[in-house]
Amino acid sequence: MRSLRLVFLGFGHVGRELARLLLAREAWLAERGLRFLVVGVSTGSRGLRADPEGLDLDALLNQPWSPLRPLTRVAGAAPEERAALIANAEADIVVEMTPLRVDLRGEPAIGHARMALEAGKHVVSANKGPVAWAYRQLDDLARREGRRFLFESAVMDGTPLFSLARRTLAGCRVLGCRGILNTTTNYVLGRLLEGQDLEGAVREAQEAGFAEADPSLDLDGWDAAVKLTCLANALMGRNLVPEEVLRQGIRDLSPEDLLREAKRGRAIRLVAEVSSSGPAQVGPVILSADDLLARASGTSSVITLTTDLMGLLSIFEHSPGLGQTAYGVFRDLLEIADQD
Amino acid sequence: MRSLRLVFLGFGHVGRELARLLLAREAWLAERGLRFLVVGVSTGSRGLRADPEGLDLDALLNQPWSPLRPLTRVAGAAPEERAALIANAEADIVVEMTPLRVDLRGEPAIGHARMALEAGKHVVSANKGPVAWAYRQLDDLARREGRRFLFESAVMDGTPLFSLARRTLAGCRVLGCRGILNTTTNYVLGRLLEGQDLEGAVREAQEAGFAEADPSLDLDGWDAAVKLTCLANALMGRNLVPEEVLRQGIRDLSPEDLLREAKRGRAIRLVAEVSSSGPAQVGPVILSADDLLARASGTSSVITLTTDLMGLLSIFEHSPGLGQTAYGVFRDLLEIADQD
Repeated sequence: MRSLRLVFLGFGHVGRELARLLLAREAWLAERGLRFLVVGVSTGSRGLRADPEGLDLDALLNQPWSPLRPLTRVAGAAPEERAALIANAEADIVVEMTPLRVDLRGEPAIGHARMALEAGKHVVSANKGPVAWAYRQLDDLARREGRRFLFESAVMDGTPLFSLARRTLAGCRVLGCRGILNTTTNYVLGRLLEGQDLEGAVREAQEAGFAEADPSLDLDGWDAAVKLTCLANALMGRNLVPEEVLRQGIRDLSPEDLLREAKRGRAIRLVAEVSSSGPAQVGPVILSADDLLARASGTSSVITLTTDLMGLLSIFEHSPGLGQTAYGVFRDLLEIADQD
Repeated sequence: MRSLRLVFLGFGHVGRELARLLLAREAWLAERGLRFLVVGVSTGSRGLRADPEGLDLDALLNQPWSPLRPLTRVAGAAPEERAALIANAEADIVVEMTPLRVDLRGEPAIGHARMALEAGKHVVSANKGPVAWAYRQLDDLARREGRRFLFESAVMDGTPLFSLARRTLAGCRVLGCRGILNTTTNYVLGRLLEGQDLEGAVREAQEAGFAEADPSLDLDGWDAAVKLTCLANALMGRNLVPEEVLRQGIRDLSPEDLLREAKRGRAIRLVAEVSSSGPAQVGPVILSADDLLARASGTSSVITLTTDLMGLLSIFEHSPGLGQTAYGVFRDLLEIADQD
């Protein structure tokens, strides 16, 4: 039995869902001679837990945190404590799941990833920040250290995009992409059309757990711009930052706009688009009914890749939940386990 | 520079397109320290060519065959000559690209694949027959021999489906699929709606190079049934043969049927569907306008995979040509090169 030791940075929606998935797949992994041990968890609000023998995930999920043992730290996870965990824990992989900070241009997650790679650890990031603002730097560092920097769930949850380009589209160049990448705006546009108002629709999306806590990240197109940057940098060799994306949100759209186009058989969606050269853009677009992007309603996402050898290829993710995000991280962990 | 030596069985549309692709990517491969040498080519009508130093692909494509040198065979490639080539050529990979024979239940391609694996060669099959009628047997044999049996282009050309399930959806189970897998019927249904008759539409598809020479393979749903069997066996652990697929073709559909549904905003498509248990079916289905499958018109294909961890995932291939089929083979060759 081979053990791979993980550190979780963040234990919110995604971290908890990943913990549940690791528990659910324990037997499946064991059949493959593999065991993932979570040796450290740091959180923003509930301090930090570490156990070199492996934390009890079931207890982390289902019991109040205080009776957990052995606790190397119980106080809030101050940055220096988190840094010590990243650098010093005997771990193989650091899983970055802290919230995206657009205002801090991807920090502190970028620093976490750099520290982990420099300490000889692989990094799996569900946080888009390090990919959007520091892809080249972290990817180069990972190569120098002989480690992996993977981030499948940064865009469209666990839908294979980065692994698709890296592995199953080997030898094929991605020249551009166009898609609907932000779930919240897509959901909100649908609800506006059904008569809900903007605030109410955003609240619904937050309660369902897929909207960002700060609605501006969704409504002003930041989330889509950050994801588009990830795709441009990792799939197309670009060197963009999210601030360079021509970005327009959905706040100026009225229910009347949506209704008018719907009556004409068309749909308005927040479309993100970039190519291997030329500008990157996020903004509302009127789509004809036969445009595949118009088929992504509610919380569904879709992306069309333009490639040199495979022409146009579209991937459609139907109404995902947190499980799909956790799966993206799980898949990256398996890829590292396969090669380690 | 590492050389991988290939034998081509078949040099029709796909074989020629693959040869063009190998020439076009020669420099790209060389940058990666890799060279593919085609050391043998067998054809149904123009005999067999072999050269242990590597055949001149440019000459194979663009010159009459007779002046090629050195010719170990010039007469028609009789089965025993082809067998000798498969078994005895000093080659790493045999690429099976002979035409699908439903009447022979996948033979002689199954025999080719078996012979090649037994001779210690990897097999890449663009021919669906070996996957539909002998997947388990050939996959087991490949594992015993420590060789690969790959067939990405058997379904939806080079669209990642088998490699997707094997690699980028690692740890995720495919529970079912539903899709439009046959290009010709999809094209023909569109042309019928536009006023063309069945024979004329089939002729157009044949002239464009994507219809089978025997129209029954397309119109009676055989091609879709064979592809569905490949998916069921390789992705879902089924043990089906194409004859077990509940199969209905499109011959009984009239332009009036299509027109009537089109006026109601619906579409009729030849839909293929199977799950990890339960029956496999191919037949005409009336689709509502918001069904993603209704968006695949002309020569486009689409498949929706039902999975345990990733929910529903659809992949859409837009109007592919032969280049996409050749790419599927190329991708498989790269996967073998990566691991060899």
